[in-house]
Amino acid sequence: MEEELLMIPGPVPVIARIREAMAKPMITHRGDEFSQIYGEIVENLKNIFQTRNDLFVLSGSGTCAMEAAVGNIIKRTNDAGKTEMRCVTIANGKFGERFTEIAERYGADVTPVHFEWGHSIELERVKEALENSPTPKVVTMAHNETSVGILNPAKEVGKLAKKHDAIFVLDCITSIGGDNVPVDEFGADIAIVGSQKCLGMPPGLAALSISERAWELMEENPSRPYYQDLVAYKKSYKKKQTPYTPALPLFFALHEALEIIKEEGMAKRIKRHRTLSKSIRAAVTSLGLSLFPKLNEVSDYSNTVTAINMPLEKGITDEQLRGGMRKKGVVVSGGQGELKGKIFRIASMGNITSTEILRTIEVLEQVLMENKFIEEEGKGLEAAKGVISFS
Amino acid sequence: MEEELLMIPGPVPVIARIREAMAKPMITHRGDEFSQIYGEIVENLKNIFQTRNDLFVLSGSGTCAMEAAVGNIIKRTNDAGKTEMRCVTIANGKFGERFTEIAERYGADVTPVHFEWGHSIELERVKEALENSPTPKVVTMAHNETSVGILNPAKEVGKLAKKHDAIFVLDCITSIGGDNVPVDEFGADIAIVGSQKCLGMPPGLAALSISERAWELMEENPSRPYYQDLVAYKKSYKKKQTPYTPALPLFFALHEALEIIKEEGMAKRIKRHRTLSKSIRAAVTSLGLSLFPKLNEVSDYSNTVTAINMPLEKGITDEQLRGGMRKKGVVVSGGQGELKGKIFRIASMGNITSTEILRTIEVLEQVLMENKFIEEEGKGLEAAKGVISFS
Repeated sequence: MEEELLMIPGPVPVIARIREAMAKPMITHRGDEFSQIYGEIVENLKNIFQTRNDLFVLSGSGTCAMEAAVGNIIKRTNDAGKTEMRCVTIANGKFGERFTEIAERYGADVTPVHFEWGHSIELERVKEALENSPTPKVVTMAHNETSVGILNPAKEVGKLAKKHDAIFVLDCITSIGGDNVPVDEFGADIAIVGSQKCLGMPPGLAALSISERAWELMEENPSRPYYQDLVAYKKSYKKKQTPYTPALPLFFALHEALEIIKEEGMAKRIKRHRTLSKSIRAAVTSLGLSLFPKLNEVSDYSNTVTAINMPLEKGITDEQLRGGMRKKGVVVSGGQGELKGKIFRIASMGNITSTEILRTIEVLEQVLMENKFIEEEGKGLEAAKGVISFS
Repeated sequence: MEEELLMIPGPVPVIARIREAMAKPMITHRGDEFSQIYGEIVENLKNIFQTRNDLFVLSGSGTCAMEAAVGNIIKRTNDAGKTEMRCVTIANGKFGERFTEIAERYGADVTPVHFEWGHSIELERVKEALENSPTPKVVTMAHNETSVGILNPAKEVGKLAKKHDAIFVLDCITSIGGDNVPVDEFGADIAIVGSQKCLGMPPGLAALSISERAWELMEENPSRPYYQDLVAYKKSYKKKQTPYTPALPLFFALHEALEIIKEEGMAKRIKRHRTLSKSIRAAVTSLGLSLFPKLNEVSDYSNTVTAINMPLEKGITDEQLRGGMRKKGVVVSGGQGELKGKIFRIASMGNITSTEILRTIEVLEQVLMENKFIEEEGKGLEAAKGVISFS
């Protein structure tokens, strides 16, 4: 049986070399071999993050690291039951809003700066919220908003955060490893990546970088989470260990995945991701489909996931489009939450190549043809190939 | 190069059949294939837990599940800054004390009932603490206290918990899968297992069962952790999914590990663990070494990890004993915290057999001989073989 081709924004397809690294025998996590592997992982990730900050790997999903970021900074409540931290949560999709949920769960004084899903972030509203929030404060944002396929203005928000003395927490879960994410240049005090996205890994790990000023808040916070206690991670890293038993097979795989990234080189890797996502955009628009995000001058289309309006006006449903593609062996994502049935999303993350992109476009065209949305096949493939061969 | 033999209480050696299951291609975690795998995992684990309660698998270590148990129950603080939950934390080793740390982190009103490490739990003191704590209250304990090799009185504490209307949280991280742990009969409202212990899996997953009365407290708690939000796990399980992306390769491995347990049968598996730990105890005592735990009428030696006093009085150090064994390819654990250098621990968990036990004893004897603790080799092996062949 032919494998299904996963074109979803995680889990991404994982090449055999990385999968097979997981079959290695176990080692003790308190020994030299683990320390060497973990140390090399951290150094390689710091290069990809373009950061001089501390960096650790958590055995958990991207959400685990999002909670770690916010939860270590927000002091739950003081003796009088009052929170001591304001949190400005910028969002134009599901993952930005997840920070709002986490911050509320931790009892912060939250100012949500929410935009309609897929619309661009307006810096004026961010500025206003930051001006009106006394310090200490945190501002959170998803860099690459996976749920709507938009790239948010990290650099610009980073500048505002700095100006208003706010800790900047940036979810780069689906951008780091596939796009240019200079964490320190962006001014991100905490930046997060997930394993099963642009790093081309299986799910199960997340990494985050932490700045000096973020440490200051964390170290004086008595209500830090326990499993995700970043101060404990810092202490254990003195021996290049983790505070609790790490998910060893995934560390073996991450070590291998980062070697593969070094072999390709980040510049080539970023260019590949950009070319492939551009080829998807070219293909779907040439077929008469439209892209979902509403861009402004500071936003851009995501370079790792493309969100496309479902052609409901032509009577084509999610079940027909995505269900039809799946029957032909290609899995793409639907919309989340209120966008269910209204959009579909094609990821182009990790170690995938033009082969997978062209197969996806071919199958999309077949399904559009069967549903009488197009009258002949080939235009999409031609457009995609045009972008790929030009690059 | 010959592999090192890991005789530590996790990570345990993992047999090839389980390791190779991880090399499978990725699947979507929102599809039928994952739901089937997860559903089967849950049913198999419920049988091993001997529970009718709900059960979920977290992508994280045993500590992740310990925090989930306590953190979902303890309401952080009310509007006046006062906690609303008392927590009686029984401990006679590192892992029991970990519950004290977690409960304090969550702001509970904690009554530690701590005994000297390796000493037995005195039920009278537990009873007293429960009598003096108003409801709502939680009582926590490690069933198999890995740090000191003692098996604590789960059934008896469960009865006290019931009598005093306390939620009983039982860490069975290193007992379930290797010893008889009838969770419902013990009255454990929450019971926890770790993957890299008696289940014979790599590290990275933990599972926990949750009773109806534990759900009642959790569902009305607004300050539940986010990544470990068990109410979210319950909701997602309606579709046999997890709320956040699961560590897929580890789920593939757990699925396989549980098949292996079914093939062996739990009765045989428990007997094997008991025989092997008994053979270790017989071997070390025949060599003139002494066991660390101080038992009373309600405690027992652990059936999955044996803690042995370091023969310091004969001038043998941790470095000589454990370092010597490691040079010969066998890794055993040292003492943790204040027991560092004072004890060593040999695990007998998961899918190991008498072969690994005998190799360990042989190497222990060689090292004891080299350090002049014994005058001839063979007594330990003979004692171990006696137990094994008798079983």
